[in-house]
Amino acid sequence: MNPTLAQLWERKSVRVFLDRPVDDATRNEIIDAAIQAPSAGNQNLYAIIDVRDQAVKDELAELCDHQPFIATAPVLWVFLADCRRWLGAYQEAGLKPRAPGPGDLLIAYADALVAAQNAVVAAHSLGLGSCYIGDILENRERVAALLNLDDYTVPAAMLVMGWPTEHQLKRPKPPRPARGDLVSVDRYRRRQGRELRASIVARESGAAASFDYDGWMRAFCERKYESDFAREMNRSAAAYLRPFME
Amino acid sequence: MNPTLAQLWERKSVRVFLDRPVDDATRNEIIDAAIQAPSAGNQNLYAIIDVRDQAVKDELAELCDHQPFIATAPVLWVFLADCRRWLGAYQEAGLKPRAPGPGDLLIAYADALVAAQNAVVAAHSLGLGSCYIGDILENRERVAALLNLDDYTVPAAMLVMGWPTEHQLKRPKPPRPARGDLVSVDRYRRRQGRELRASIVARESGAAASFDYDGWMRAFCERKYESDFAREMNRSAAAYLRPFME
Repeated sequence: MNPTLAQLWERKSVRVFLDRPVDDATRNEIIDAAIQAPSAGNQNLYAIIDVRDQAVKDELAELCDHQPFIATAPVLWVFLADCRRWLGAYQEAGLKPRAPGPGDLLIAYADALVAAQNAVVAAHSLGLGSCYIGDILENRERVAALLNLDDYTVPAAMLVMGWPTEHQLKRPKPPRPARGDLVSVDRYRRRQGRELRASIVARESGAAASFDYDGWMRAFCERKYESDFAREMNRSAAAYLRPFME
Repeated sequence: MNPTLAQLWERKSVRVFLDRPVDDATRNEIIDAAIQAPSAGNQNLYAIIDVRDQAVKDELAELCDHQPFIATAPVLWVFLADCRRWLGAYQEAGLKPRAPGPGDLLIAYADALVAAQNAVVAAHSLGLGSCYIGDILENRERVAALLNLDDYTVPAAMLVMGWPTEHQLKRPKPPRPARGDLVSVDRYRRRQGRELRASIVARESGAAASFDYDGWMRAFCERKYESDFAREMNRSAAAYLRPFME
């Protein structure tokens, strides 16, 4: 395995950081590697907000499902799908472009995520830990007011970064599914009940014979899929999508 | 610059490949590195279709804006946002979960893109060229029939890969925007007309005094944003989103 592959295998999410700042040179190395990412038509349909103001960090920690570690992370970046910038560039040329639609949004969303993942890979190569915060999709109205978003700029990813604690470095990486759970040939193969059960058991039980699939799944579903934050995320995402659907 | 950062800088899209297959061991190394990517709640809300059947590749080349290089690429992978698999796993536990909403879709979309970008980085480290095909978002009805998609599985990325030709290796990487064009501090800073003009001129003109911003932008807008494929992509994306908005 080459060193880059080894780093992709090693990298795990880090949520606890040393109380040690990340200097501007290091931040810029990561941002510049992110900007080298591929993008649709080389249009770079994203923007990055580098959140430095402690009051904004505190507010984001609250708005992202009340997670205090967000406020104390040395680096906090929001990657936006930006369907506004090129619209402005077209208008500057005297053009009257159509309003962005849902396809434009999804393409911009992809650009933002691809750049964000380059940032994650770059950060890991420099010894920095990182974590995606999906909760940035919640509370559209307050997040948009806080970050000065408009109808055509939508958060696609939030990343926190910092120097990992010793404990975080030693924490085992949670196991990923087997290749066969995710890959199918030529067509999507919909997994059925028993197969899904077997793959979760294999991954979560550590081969313990006593693993209670139904109980584990009920608790997981309540904590994640049927949670208040998931409902809020769906409400908020619908609000972000609405201007693109008109 | 460490070797991983150097690879992120080097990597550019490759659309022309040697007539040389990519063996299964290499494919698996890339897929396995993709699966090591972070995902929301470690749920891996995506699926990968490994398209091997030439007839399916031919059809995808047609459906993705008639681009023949797609059909001849040695590797063709579709990364789906998969809101179906966990639904099935919940149901297998006897639960009656709600239908997925737009927030669930966007989170799964993010998972799919983050994994796809790991695949791109892994492939480059092994000497393989790759290219994203955003056009997979078009022609929802025919793509869904071809790939056996259902209401809760949505294409987030298509990747072609193969061994780059000498010519592709030598082709200069198209310049990326300056950091200041994409990054703002604490809040999204909406770029205004003259600033947008200056950044496009800086990037596209190679400092040629004669660069015609208005003409360049008019041609670009017609070829991309106001194209038939962009309109089709918006129509098709709306159709993909509809089941999540109910």
